[in-house]
Amino acid sequence: MPLHAPEYADVAAAADRIRGHAHRTPVMRSRTVDAEFGAEVFFKCENLQRMGAFKFRGAFNALSKFDARQREAGVVAFSSGNHAQAVALSARLLGIPATIIMPQDAPQVKIDATRGYGGEVVLYDRYTEDREAIGRDLSQKYGLTLVPPYDHPDVIAGQGTAAKELFEDAGPMDALFVCLGGGGLLSGSALSARALSPGCQVYGVEPEAGNDGQQSFRSGQIVHIDTPKTIADGAQTQHLGQFTFPIIRREVADILTVSDPELIDAMNFYAARMKIVVEPTGCLSFAAARAMRAELAGKRVGVIVSGGNVDMRRFCELLLSKG
Amino acid sequence: MPLHAPEYADVAAAADRIRGHAHRTPVMRSRTVDAEFGAEVFFKCENLQRMGAFKFRGAFNALSKFDARQREAGVVAFSSGNHAQAVALSARLLGIPATIIMPQDAPQVKIDATRGYGGEVVLYDRYTEDREAIGRDLSQKYGLTLVPPYDHPDVIAGQGTAAKELFEDAGPMDALFVCLGGGGLLSGSALSARALSPGCQVYGVEPEAGNDGQQSFRSGQIVHIDTPKTIADGAQTQHLGQFTFPIIRREVADILTVSDPELIDAMNFYAARMKIVVEPTGCLSFAAARAMRAELAGKRVGVIVSGGNVDMRRFCELLLSKG
Repeated sequence: MPLHAPEYADVAAAADRIRGHAHRTPVMRSRTVDAEFGAEVFFKCENLQRMGAFKFRGAFNALSKFDARQREAGVVAFSSGNHAQAVALSARLLGIPATIIMPQDAPQVKIDATRGYGGEVVLYDRYTEDREAIGRDLSQKYGLTLVPPYDHPDVIAGQGTAAKELFEDAGPMDALFVCLGGGGLLSGSALSARALSPGCQVYGVEPEAGNDGQQSFRSGQIVHIDTPKTIADGAQTQHLGQFTFPIIRREVADILTVSDPELIDAMNFYAARMKIVVEPTGCLSFAAARAMRAELAGKRVGVIVSGGNVDMRRFCELLLSKG
Repeated sequence: MPLHAPEYADVAAAADRIRGHAHRTPVMRSRTVDAEFGAEVFFKCENLQRMGAFKFRGAFNALSKFDARQREAGVVAFSSGNHAQAVALSARLLGIPATIIMPQDAPQVKIDATRGYGGEVVLYDRYTEDREAIGRDLSQKYGLTLVPPYDHPDVIAGQGTAAKELFEDAGPMDALFVCLGGGGLLSGSALSARALSPGCQVYGVEPEAGNDGQQSFRSGQIVHIDTPKTIADGAQTQHLGQFTFPIIRREVADILTVSDPELIDAMNFYAARMKIVVEPTGCLSFAAARAMRAELAGKRVGVIVSGGNVDMRRFCELLLSKG
């Protein structure tokens, strides 16, 4: 069955599938932020999602749609980050065997976490081996179903449920800020915005060092870049996807970029003032909103806080680096 | 009018007074903690309270009860910590002038925060001057009403509203862990527990270095100690109060102590796994619950997370100190 471009109906169906498995995460407010912006700002806290990031939504939705044969054979995914843990945890909850392909130099804590969720970890050398080839190989040899990190209709639909909950719980927004790596969260959020808050301007936010999405958005075709150097490790993707790009192109108002120092400022603000831990990638949305706050005065502003999975040593080193 | 010992009815009245001013803070869960304990653990997140700590509840309740003369003359408080900010913010919200007596070597950030809330800050030299004498002086000279940090029925009643909300939102508990400095939060929590969850064992938790509460509880009279050396700066009080002690003695099951390294472990767990920032004093309750988790298996356990006001540099230095 060929895959079709996801629509809001798919987001709504995903919401039914993940109900009772994913957390309906809280929407936080900050009087300090509201005063600073002269606006009403609503933070959708996916750092408080299961396994610490929105990725659980998409992975669980995709795995829930497996048929009996797929469930028995198992799932394969490649990721060094949150997607790996999201697939491993979803697979365990659904009783599906999971194989996760991770670079052998991935942080031990992430390898351990993935194994802790019951995933079988296959390590590869990221300098001499191609993880996509390994994935295809395992997929063909053992009939495993590959669940990609962002460019899949079921993944996009699952990620869109976070923004859906935000609109349902906090009402329509004038603007919504969403981080952008491969575009799964952004395209899913845009589908929800279009359906539930039609006047809302949706902004994707990338690290300055890796603005392939911005280039693609403005040029009208998918631009590929080298792996960018940024502390936003969840947004180090090299290009948008065939499913995510058309939605972004059609539904998104603009793609913005922020610098690493702005991310650290936002991370510090979240911790010091809002008392929450947010990973660098999760700070993209708020950092961009802050930079354009003059234009947001008097508006209702949504900010998706995408995740909180950051090694505490790294977190502290980043905060202390700002003096 | 002589002050009377607070009862649960005072907590209930305080809840009415603070409604719409204090946040009804969320109750968080952690599957990891539940699995580790083999129990259901409920975290009442007062680190997400206004100005970052439960202290706002007691201060706002006390100031709300001022009569016209008191409101006009103003309030005075002495504190280097959360109580100062709680009084300053409550006073601003109620349109009452506030004078806060702070040591001149208090962190600039706390002095600034107190001024930011509109409080007039009077600095004193903690080595040569007596803050209580300064407070009494101002009180007599200008008719200011002194609101003490813990030993006052209105403060105790206000602090009790946090546990009240926990029982209302999460149901009765078998055990409740509460940090203990001067005993305002502990005695207020015990009043709520007695009324709303009569079978609940309430535990007060002190830093190991400053166990005056434990000594007092066991000896039956208030024991005074020198200011203890501990990272739990909110629990560096030297003695319980005349209002807090009798309630603690009557209603509390036991007073436990934890070490500074245990506090850092708990602080790290909160940040790394639950994605929340908790100040060292706020970690006392969970650290003690963890240490006796074997006895808590199968139970419903409440943990009051008292505050999140920690300088981020200090927070990071503490976390990194554990290697």
